[in-house]
Amino acid sequence: MQIGIRLDPDSRVPFYRQLYLRLREMIVSGELRAGERLPPSRQLAGRLGLNRTTVTAAYALLEAEGLIRGHVGRGSFVATGPALPALAWEKLLPPADLPPAPAPPGGPGLISFASSRPAEDLFPLEDLRRSAEEVLAGPDAAAILQLGSPLGYPPLRQYLAAEARKRGLLRDGDDVIVTSGCQQALDLLARVLVRPGDAVLVEDPVYPGLKNVFLRAGARVAGVPVGPGGIDLDELGRLLGRLRPRLVAVTPDFQNPTGATLEVHARQSLLRMVREAGAVLIENDIYGELRYDGAAQPPMKRLDESGDTVLVSSFSKAGFPGLRVGWVIAPKLLVARLAEAKQAADLHTDHLSQAVLLRFAESGRLAAHRERVRAAGAERLRALLGALEKHFPKGTFYSRPQGGMNVWVRLPGGLDAAGLLPRALAEGVAYLPGAYFEVSRRDPCALRLSFAGLPAERIRRGVEILGRLLRNELRHARGGEGYEPAPALV
Amino acid sequence: MQIGIRLDPDSRVPFYRQLYLRLREMIVSGELRAGERLPPSRQLAGRLGLNRTTVTAAYALLEAEGLIRGHVGRGSFVATGPALPALAWEKLLPPADLPPAPAPPGGPGLISFASSRPAEDLFPLEDLRRSAEEVLAGPDAAAILQLGSPLGYPPLRQYLAAEARKRGLLRDGDDVIVTSGCQQALDLLARVLVRPGDAVLVEDPVYPGLKNVFLRAGARVAGVPVGPGGIDLDELGRLLGRLRPRLVAVTPDFQNPTGATLEVHARQSLLRMVREAGAVLIENDIYGELRYDGAAQPPMKRLDESGDTVLVSSFSKAGFPGLRVGWVIAPKLLVARLAEAKQAADLHTDHLSQAVLLRFAESGRLAAHRERVRAAGAERLRALLGALEKHFPKGTFYSRPQGGMNVWVRLPGGLDAAGLLPRALAEGVAYLPGAYFEVSRRDPCALRLSFAGLPAERIRRGVEILGRLLRNELRHARGGEGYEPAPALV
Repeated sequence: MQIGIRLDPDSRVPFYRQLYLRLREMIVSGELRAGERLPPSRQLAGRLGLNRTTVTAAYALLEAEGLIRGHVGRGSFVATGPALPALAWEKLLPPADLPPAPAPPGGPGLISFASSRPAEDLFPLEDLRRSAEEVLAGPDAAAILQLGSPLGYPPLRQYLAAEARKRGLLRDGDDVIVTSGCQQALDLLARVLVRPGDAVLVEDPVYPGLKNVFLRAGARVAGVPVGPGGIDLDELGRLLGRLRPRLVAVTPDFQNPTGATLEVHARQSLLRMVREAGAVLIENDIYGELRYDGAAQPPMKRLDESGDTVLVSSFSKAGFPGLRVGWVIAPKLLVARLAEAKQAADLHTDHLSQAVLLRFAESGRLAAHRERVRAAGAERLRALLGALEKHFPKGTFYSRPQGGMNVWVRLPGGLDAAGLLPRALAEGVAYLPGAYFEVSRRDPCALRLSFAGLPAERIRRGVEILGRLLRNELRHARGGEGYEPAPALV
Repeated sequence: MQIGIRLDPDSRVPFYRQLYLRLREMIVSGELRAGERLPPSRQLAGRLGLNRTTVTAAYALLEAEGLIRGHVGRGSFVATGPALPALAWEKLLPPADLPPAPAPPGGPGLISFASSRPAEDLFPLEDLRRSAEEVLAGPDAAAILQLGSPLGYPPLRQYLAAEARKRGLLRDGDDVIVTSGCQQALDLLARVLVRPGDAVLVEDPVYPGLKNVFLRAGARVAGVPVGPGGIDLDELGRLLGRLRPRLVAVTPDFQNPTGATLEVHARQSLLRMVREAGAVLIENDIYGELRYDGAAQPPMKRLDESGDTVLVSSFSKAGFPGLRVGWVIAPKLLVARLAEAKQAADLHTDHLSQAVLLRFAESGRLAAHRERVRAAGAERLRALLGALEKHFPKGTFYSRPQGGMNVWVRLPGGLDAAGLLPRALAEGVAYLPGAYFEVSRRDPCALRLSFAGLPAERIRRGVEILGRLLRNELRHARGGEGYEPAPALV
């Protein structure tokens, strides 16, 4: 072992102590590793021009501190620390009660319909760069880097409140809290409102991140079927009566995964039913800004004169999902509790992204970006629906959303979406099988195609490949016999 | 009401439908407010040069949709939505079981020792601006704005892993997960490891954000007293035996609020005791980088040859608390579970701050900043200790930390720190009373002075004001009688 040690002859610190401190530093910093042998005291003394007793004294101090250990006849070694009993992590950790999320398929050339996310090629990098620059050159820069409020960066909260008030989404009794994305908004709501054993109703199928939040909070989660016109109100009524849920979470616009939208009538009925059952209504408005077609429907938060509907939204889908900024608009009493939960969960939402997104929005860049995202989304949705019409076998059902990022497909002839996935991947196309979105009902023929992140040309190509695969599969399945399309199930 | 409506005579859409769609849009967007009266159909027809039946047809469509409501003899009104029973939020929300955090005292001119945070005047804004600029101009910019991994931004994870490996803090069996600050690291650990009713040991006094995380998870939290040399090992031994805790959380360097540091011997004993009790050891290393004086002590994670110690740290204290980026280094099995919990909690940590901090670190700017923060911290700590010596009454105990941001003070003569606070505030000085940090033991004479955020001159001035207040108080309390200092309690 070569030890780089220089002692200072002019120091008032005696040599043995200088040597002790230097060796100690090397051990504590990891420069000398556990188990490593120190040079014999005689040898080190010779090398440094010291008395051997000086080295021995330094070693003695280190040994007294437990940092080295002497073995008679073998020399001194950097202590390996106490031999500790290892923990049995398998026993300490609770059983994994949720199926793991499927690994996002990757690989160059893969046409992936698997992720409900915006297109990277549309990100206005220059606009975002300018927003960050303006924030960090602005008078608030130091405050932004400093610790903040669990309720959010005050100028962003004011902006969100003013925007929501303009749209009739924030009443005098309401308040806004900024969260680390929609996902955290749901998580904080679960932490504040759900006790183990409470029933929670969600749409079926549904984005699993929404379902899992309530399962993790110990809720009994039941699914209300979603058809092309949104949630099934008859079934909702039955479940409200039978389960007396504490909470109902609904995505009224372009629901993930079905793409379904609730008409205003249905919104009003749903609102009344949920309220009369004494349950809290959570309106997940994450896709609301992404309408490509048809008349806008009023958010339920706006239709609810009592103001009790809880609205969650974020900048992720029409902005940048990597910047984790969402929000909740809800009665003040609930927002105060969410702020307590937020403080315990992560103190507050990242300030840099809050400030940059505020600048991006206030400067008009967000509105311009949203227009581009909408135009691209409309084109991509048209491309997908056109390609499905052209390439998918007869008897396929697919939703025709007016916005958002997802189309829900149900295959004909009993074809199994999960079973076909490996073959689709082998041909260079990915999607998510319906099983991933199940709540109470199995639907093995279903799959989700997320189109927003893919250029139209790749969408058409991917659907063509899938269509060929499906037609081959059907031909094979019926072996030349007459083929009856399965009845539409949604 | 003035309605700005233009109908298009060249459109193929009939007038009644154009009018219906325009009014609908105004209602849905909030431009027409709930309860507002629509013009009488005859009047609107005249204004627009339409047949009255055209207007009546449009109104009928709106009414059928529930968007307006006609009242005989009074006209048509924008529907106020169904009159819904309001929710009884007081009953829906669980009782607030934790005392609210004290409002951070503010006001111009206030000398506040109340917040354990870095100094804003030291923030290297230009360096941070450059880091953000480089990130957003770099080849990874689009990927950074896109959805990411619950484990963290891969280049940052690699950087953290390499740094930790160099320092002997990451073994082959370990992994790193990036969190939204240290607070979330603790919260995720509680969510994965603590079941309701489990015992958890923390230091007493302790930063309440740490205690609250475990209380909210339903743990029975017990405090192990902290003296000038760190946690009391005898009491730790008794509590380990009596409570069989699942988890022990310790801040070995510059503990908040006491500033105490554990010596290497004590670390080794603690490690052995906790491990032999079968409990998980969480090492909160948040202040570790901020040593101003004395020899560095090896982190317990490094002393633990089994590798089972869980290390949590962040960029907050030596960097920027407003950028919420922390991390956990722990055995892979635990990290995998933390990633599941993280995905449900907020999908992943904000990408922009992860990337900007990585750039800030890799470019050497973090190291340069840390040096400035250390130099300022050392000067400020010296100023505080010197001023306490000079101005505080005899019999005051105060800790003499070798780093961090906090000094713990215990007042003589039974003075009540919480009781004195209003008078201190009236004289322009803020601090946090010890009660805020209590776990199992009351200590009304204690208070915390956080010095890192204040220039030395203001520290001296603030301590002088407090000292005068305390001496007056003592004079008043003993009314001229002989005064015995209270025995030191820590």
